[in-house]
Amino acid sequence: MGSVDLAAIKAAHTRIKPFIHRTPVMTSLTIDAMTGAQVFFKCENLQKAGAFKYRGATNAVQSLSETEAKRGVVTHSSGNHAGALSLAARVRGIPAYIVMPSSTPQIKQDAVRGYGGQITICEPTLAARESTAAAVQSRTGAVMIHPFDNDAVIAGQGTAAVELLEEVPELDAILAPVGGGGLLSGTAIAARALRPGMKVVGCEPQLADDAAESFRTGKIAPARPPRSVGDGLLTSLCERTFGYIRANVNQIALASDEEMLAAMRLVLQRMKILIEPSCGVALAVLLNGATAFQGKKVGVIISGGNVEISRLV
Amino acid sequence: MGSVDLAAIKAAHTRIKPFIHRTPVMTSLTIDAMTGAQVFFKCENLQKAGAFKYRGATNAVQSLSETEAKRGVVTHSSGNHAGALSLAARVRGIPAYIVMPSSTPQIKQDAVRGYGGQITICEPTLAARESTAAAVQSRTGAVMIHPFDNDAVIAGQGTAAVELLEEVPELDAILAPVGGGGLLSGTAIAARALRPGMKVVGCEPQLADDAAESFRTGKIAPARPPRSVGDGLLTSLCERTFGYIRANVNQIALASDEEMLAAMRLVLQRMKILIEPSCGVALAVLLNGATAFQGKKVGVIISGGNVEISRLV
Repeated sequence: MGSVDLAAIKAAHTRIKPFIHRTPVMTSLTIDAMTGAQVFFKCENLQKAGAFKYRGATNAVQSLSETEAKRGVVTHSSGNHAGALSLAARVRGIPAYIVMPSSTPQIKQDAVRGYGGQITICEPTLAARESTAAAVQSRTGAVMIHPFDNDAVIAGQGTAAVELLEEVPELDAILAPVGGGGLLSGTAIAARALRPGMKVVGCEPQLADDAAESFRTGKIAPARPPRSVGDGLLTSLCERTFGYIRANVNQIALASDEEMLAAMRLVLQRMKILIEPSCGVALAVLLNGATAFQGKKVGVIISGGNVEISRLV
Repeated sequence: MGSVDLAAIKAAHTRIKPFIHRTPVMTSLTIDAMTGAQVFFKCENLQKAGAFKYRGATNAVQSLSETEAKRGVVTHSSGNHAGALSLAARVRGIPAYIVMPSSTPQIKQDAVRGYGGQITICEPTLAARESTAAAVQSRTGAVMIHPFDNDAVIAGQGTAAVELLEEVPELDAILAPVGGGGLLSGTAIAARALRPGMKVVGCEPQLADDAAESFRTGKIAPARPPRSVGDGLLTSLCERTFGYIRANVNQIALASDEEMLAAMRLVLQRMKILIEPSCGVALAVLLNGATAFQGKKVGVIISGGNVEISRLV
């Protein structure tokens, strides 16, 4: 299926460096004491557009030829990929057509509009999303940039792990959330190549444990009903990401919604940064005992910070 | 009165560098568009113990002789200085005695205890704070480290501005909140020496506008009744800080409590970092027209992030 390797991720890094933030790596003595590990947080919530998604979107957009680029890009997304692709397109000066389900929160629609994305609203089903995006694509000639079933996107997402390992080369493990698997794929490919012996762990809500089942059975499990607060992690894997994950990931660990929300509040209170429930999951599995990294150096990809403030308390 | 100059601030920087975070400088296209300026935020909310106070406390603690240090340090504080001094003392392996008024929120008491500080509770009046601290001092022989009426503390606070100007040397203006005036003094001394032509602005809540009055009349005005949400900015100046401020500051600008809270929420939503209402004041004066920096490069010291999450919404 896919062909992303460390060379592709490093090429992506060179390509996107002028456009992205090199996000800080943060630590917390309190969280180290609570987890028994030494935890290094790669803060992609401080990335442009508020999430790691800007890395993959920028790599995809900047990889287009002039001819491809001038017709613009199209995607369907209710989440961070929509905002990230809109901003990446604006930076290149090309249109972004975003198909969003009618259930998309106003704040995410506003973010896309703020970055210059052109929104088409559709029914909140995968079939409607795909057919609407296909119609927009055939009308405009825009290039489809899938949020994770795309090697340029996956290579871009892997650059966060490359930066983290540049700053903390002696990591024993790296944790990243898993939804569609783009971030986890890029992270795992980079980590496995740069430090073959390290543990790579995907982190998933118990209420959306399809990746854990897929990993266990060897067959892609369907998405669960959308009940978890980890709204960025509800999608199922695709063949491409599943292939990368099977080849490079050691474990998929689970956490409950309550544990994810507690982790989000802990990070806000102690580290003073805002993270989404979807990325509280990685810290939650360090705290709930689903992993065993006592005394180890553990990297955590903090994937995004796009959350409505009213949900914090 | 005081004798802090750029050399003292640079010496403090060398002394504290091994112990502090070099905090990131962040920017936001949204906030640039809203203010009409190019704003560079020095994120001391991401400093250890959650505030710039750790710089001054560390410089004071690390400046003590071995003989002085072994008896420990003492202060009275209901806020960030208490936590910062406790942690700075623990790092040096010496006791910290903290006198806190009985009105101190539980969360701030917990922070001090978490850093190993030994708390004595007193009545919530300045007289009780001072007499209790004096009693603790005479019992223990500890060295009094005042939160701002102390040159070692002021020199430490100035190191944030030094780092900001290292990263963005061409700043036209720098803004910092003013309470007792330690941060503003250190910031102003550093900025005036490193870039003589730049504007230095102190930012204060309208409901605690004693520094603005002092600056206007040339005479230290008393603290206002504690009504502002900017709970770190309620103290009045002392002769030492007033002297530094008169010599180096161009303007004291005011913002309302509503404007400060709106700035705090804006930073959380757009920049994904948690700031105290007390440091929302600097962004608030950029937004409310109390300053005029259209098209200019403006540095803002984000002073701290210690706020109870329940107050966010």
